[in-house]
Amino acid sequence: MNKFEHVKSRRTRPAKSPLGRDIIIKTAYQLLCEDGMSGMSMRKVAKALDTGPASLYVYVENYQKLSSYVLDYALQDVQLAESETVSWQDAIIDVLKSYFLTLVETPGLAELTLITSPNGPNSMDINECLLRNLQAGGISPRSAAWGLDILLLYVSSLAVERARHNEKDKALEEVETSYEVVDKSKYPMISMLKSELFSGEGEERFIWGIKVILQGILSTKK
Amino acid sequence: MNKFEHVKSRRTRPAKSPLGRDIIIKTAYQLLCEDGMSGMSMRKVAKALDTGPASLYVYVENYQKLSSYVLDYALQDVQLAESETVSWQDAIIDVLKSYFLTLVETPGLAELTLITSPNGPNSMDINECLLRNLQAGGISPRSAAWGLDILLLYVSSLAVERARHNEKDKALEEVETSYEVVDKSKYPMISMLKSELFSGEGEERFIWGIKVILQGILSTKK
Repeated sequence: MNKFEHVKSRRTRPAKSPLGRDIIIKTAYQLLCEDGMSGMSMRKVAKALDTGPASLYVYVENYQKLSSYVLDYALQDVQLAESETVSWQDAIIDVLKSYFLTLVETPGLAELTLITSPNGPNSMDINECLLRNLQAGGISPRSAAWGLDILLLYVSSLAVERARHNEKDKALEEVETSYEVVDKSKYPMISMLKSELFSGEGEERFIWGIKVILQGILSTKK
Repeated sequence: MNKFEHVKSRRTRPAKSPLGRDIIIKTAYQLLCEDGMSGMSMRKVAKALDTGPASLYVYVENYQKLSSYVLDYALQDVQLAESETVSWQDAIIDVLKSYFLTLVETPGLAELTLITSPNGPNSMDINECLLRNLQAGGISPRSAAWGLDILLLYVSSLAVERARHNEKDKALEEVETSYEVVDKSKYPMISMLKSELFSGEGEERFIWGIKVILQGILSTKK
C-alpha cells in the first residue's frame, strides 16, 4: 500500500471562496445565529472560513467593527412597508414591531445592541424611514433626531429583557408575590396598583410605550 | 518539634459571624463592587464567608434570588428627597438621576438590571415614591403603573449603555463618520439631521427623555 495514499491532492479540495468583508459578515452572522454572542469571535469566524484571524483584519479592522456590521446585516429583515393607508404613528409602530421581532428571533442579537450600534445600509434605511414618519407626524426635526434614539433604546431594551426572560420573569414573579402582602399604610400606591403593575399582555404594553414616547416627543419642547 | 504545632487551635481563630440572609447579601454586594458580575457567585460568596455553598442555600434559595436581593440592597443609595418646593416632575427627575448614578457607580450593577428585578424594601420605597409623584402630576393610577415601568426601563438601559460606553462610544463615532458622507438624495432626513442626531450632553438628553416619557404618559389614554 502506498503510504502517501491518504494524502489528498490539494487540487481535489473544494476551492475557497475569495475572502472579503461581505463573506466575513455573513459568516459571523451565521455563527451568531447558531451559538449566540459567544459563537462570534474573530478567531471562530476565521476558522469557519478556513483561514487565520490575520487575514480577516485586512477587511474588518476589529471585533467592535465586526459586531456593528453584523448587527446592521441582521437588520435587513426589518420590514419598512410604507403604505399610504396607515397613519404616521401606525407606520412607526409597525417598523418598531418588526425591529423588535428581528432582535429577539436571532440568539445574541438583542445583546449585541448593548455593546454596539449598527453600522451600514439597513440601519440607515430604518432611521431614515422613522425620521420621515416622525416628520409626517408634525414632530420638529430636532425633536425627531433625539426622539429616534429614545424609541430605538426602548425597543432594544425590551428585546434584551425578552431574550433574558427566563431569568427575569422568575424575578418578576417573586416581586409580584411580595407585593401581594404589602403593608397598605406604608405603601398605599403599590397596594392600590399591585395588580395593575403586572397587568397587560406584552404586545399591548409594547405598543402603549411607543405611543407614550411619540405623544411625549410631540408635546415636549426641545 | 511537635508535629502538631502548625495545627492552630480552633479557639484562637476569630469567631465567624453567624450566617444569615443579610450578611450573605452584603458580602455578595461587596464582591460585586470589587469584581463586577463575575465576582458574584454562590460559590464565591460562600468562600468569602468561609463556608460552603450548601450553607448559603438555607438562607438564599438560588443565584437568581441572590441577584434580586443584591440589586435591591444597592438601591439604598438612591435619594428620595421629597421637598415641598420642587414640582412633581422635578422630583421624579431627581429620583431617576440618583437611580441612574447608583447603577453606574457600582461595577456590574447596571448589568444586573438586565437579568433580574430588585426585590426588597429599597425598590419598594423608590416605586412608591415615583407612583406618588406621578399621581401628584395628575396621571391616572393605571397609567402611572405602566408608566413607572417605562421610566425605570429607560434609566436602566441608559445605565447599561453607559457601563459599556467604551465599546459603544467607538461604534457611535463610526456611525457619525459614515453619516457625514451620506447620499443626500437617498437619505434626506439623515442628511439634514446628521449633526442633531449626535448632539447634546448626556445629562441634557437624559432629562429630555424623562420629560418626554412623563408628557407622553400624561397625554396617552390607557
